[in-house]
Amino acid sequence: MNAPLLSISRRLRHTPFTRRVTEAGVKAYTVYNHMLLPTVFKSVEADYHHLKKHVQIWDVSCERQIEIKGPDAAKLMQMLTPRDLRAMTPGQCYYVPIVDATGGMLNDPVALKFDEEKFYISIADNDTLYWAQGIAYGFRLDVDVNEPDVSPLAIQGPKAEDLMARVFGESVRDIKFFKFRMYDFLGQSMAIARSGYSKQGGYEIYVDGTEYGEPLWDALMEAGADLNVRAGCPNAIERVEAGLLSYGNDMNWRNTPHECGLGRFCDTILAIGCVGRDALLRVAMEGPMRQIRSISIDGDKVPLCTNMWLAFVDGKEIGEITSAVWSPDFETNVAIGMIDREYWDDGTIIEVQTPDGMRKATVCEKSFI
Amino acid sequence: MNAPLLSISRRLRHTPFTRRVTEAGVKAYTVYNHMLLPTVFKSVEADYHHLKKHVQIWDVSCERQIEIKGPDAAKLMQMLTPRDLRAMTPGQCYYVPIVDATGGMLNDPVALKFDEEKFYISIADNDTLYWAQGIAYGFRLDVDVNEPDVSPLAIQGPKAEDLMARVFGESVRDIKFFKFRMYDFLGQSMAIARSGYSKQGGYEIYVDGTEYGEPLWDALMEAGADLNVRAGCPNAIERVEAGLLSYGNDMNWRNTPHECGLGRFCDTILAIGCVGRDALLRVAMEGPMRQIRSISIDGDKVPLCTNMWLAFVDGKEIGEITSAVWSPDFETNVAIGMIDREYWDDGTIIEVQTPDGMRKATVCEKSFI
Repeated sequence: MNAPLLSISRRLRHTPFTRRVTEAGVKAYTVYNHMLLPTVFKSVEADYHHLKKHVQIWDVSCERQIEIKGPDAAKLMQMLTPRDLRAMTPGQCYYVPIVDATGGMLNDPVALKFDEEKFYISIADNDTLYWAQGIAYGFRLDVDVNEPDVSPLAIQGPKAEDLMARVFGESVRDIKFFKFRMYDFLGQSMAIARSGYSKQGGYEIYVDGTEYGEPLWDALMEAGADLNVRAGCPNAIERVEAGLLSYGNDMNWRNTPHECGLGRFCDTILAIGCVGRDALLRVAMEGPMRQIRSISIDGDKVPLCTNMWLAFVDGKEIGEITSAVWSPDFETNVAIGMIDREYWDDGTIIEVQTPDGMRKATVCEKSFI
Repeated sequence: MNAPLLSISRRLRHTPFTRRVTEAGVKAYTVYNHMLLPTVFKSVEADYHHLKKHVQIWDVSCERQIEIKGPDAAKLMQMLTPRDLRAMTPGQCYYVPIVDATGGMLNDPVALKFDEEKFYISIADNDTLYWAQGIAYGFRLDVDVNEPDVSPLAIQGPKAEDLMARVFGESVRDIKFFKFRMYDFLGQSMAIARSGYSKQGGYEIYVDGTEYGEPLWDALMEAGADLNVRAGCPNAIERVEAGLLSYGNDMNWRNTPHECGLGRFCDTILAIGCVGRDALLRVAMEGPMRQIRSISIDGDKVPLCTNMWLAFVDGKEIGEITSAVWSPDFETNVAIGMIDREYWDDGTIIEVQTPDGMRKATVCEKSFI
């Protein structure tokens, strides 16, 4: 199945940047958190080469925020995740697996701590908001849990720092990875974090108020003209090369954080209060039965991976591929999949059932970049 | 903005019928509950005329089910909705507004009662599943709340009854509106309800198990060849003519059921246990300040309504249009919008700010069909 048309209605929410994205010639979208997320401007490959050389502005408004405010904010945050949040300080970003009572992954967001009584959770594609609201209501927590009018704009690519310094000042260069600081734009304060869904470096601006969207977009485009800045979006090739997981593609509620290779973010013994703690203590004792791996698939460019492809060794099913795409830089098909414990070691040769036939593939311990 | 391309990935889930839908020549999709929902086969207008004359098979798998099972199932159901569920009997479908603690609409699903300990909630586009799970966890209810492998297939149009009788037997003719019965298909039991997202009459089959999807599709297509059966989908024109609301388009969490014209489904005084009861008792006392209305908009075919259009009287903002489309049968633009109390009476003349200019419009008490 290649790209069909997308019927747009109000239900697929526009973002503060949609008009600019349209003017920039967006060719395709996906839908993410009930919102339009651009996927292609020139072509996935052209966008990829540009991202690795220059700087792009990404409308990632669809990374909606759950704002948790109030005296019990920190308590609710700890209920949601097996990561120990006690040492988290204001200005830090934490990657926090969010789990249900069975330890199943509900989401894999980045959380921002503003102070003891205010957090953002920048969520992947589902309404984890309702889970947080249901827990808050059920436990009568003193918190307000809502989706604010905050829309992240990502600046990604090797020239991102130069571009950001021109618009927000030299001090943005000092922001460390997974830290954020507050900056003013047109008199409005907004968080800027050193983060983003690529391995090319960059920032995410938590644009606080729809009305600031277009002025900020325009300011960045103008300031970056000689840096070859252009509109971009999370790139299907680069993110698989980088081993960046995509919730809903590479994992869902069936998987534990340990299966997703996120065991290092689970301090489950210390995460007292986490609703999935009992289940995850069990998982931590036994270890996961399968885990996410990067995989290279032999042969020419694979077809579009729109569904799970099963993986085999000697005719036995041993896993599944969930994302796969041709990498021009590595000259192989890069992929992400869930592989059974006995076959997940680096270099294991497996077979993958692609829509155009069985192919040889190799399990990789590390991502490509 | 006219239809761009949709980039498909595993995250936008295929359905048990996607292969058949593709073979039937689907032209466009939307994304609904993280799943592909067809929107156009021949053209929206051609599909509309066909739906009103013949019979169509709709892949509405995206109406995902929340299955609530266990001793506290009825208790949890009543916590979710202000509709009094005490008189609901097995085999009944109820339209149940689902509200949060402030009485805001979280969803407007149809619920099916199998017995005291088993319900389905056939949800509109959001993860109300997590709200139900959060409440169940918070209140330590003895229930299992999950999304089963059940995918509704709708049979809609004036010849739906004839087609269904051929495949499931004459007794389907006796199923009353918003009732369901269990039928066997290839040895598998599944609920069949007299319901659906059109006013042309028809059924929804709750296909229980992905593996039954294609055989059932094929059986219906074969049995209906001389009835001019074909693949269809919820139709953007027919549903607006019929005044069928679309969650996310015509309403969201900001609205109360009363604003959505669903006051008749709120027995709030009797709905003891509903989490939104206190807030809705207040609303019921004061009445809504604005309400959903059907609206006809003068002039030629309106542009695609992808965002809210504001409505005015004498230059004062008095509401908003959320869905609008040209109706070939009524030879006017039919629309749905939220109109302030002072202006919602039948026949009130208003002005609507469409992308191609201000137009005269008329508020209608009733839907067009």
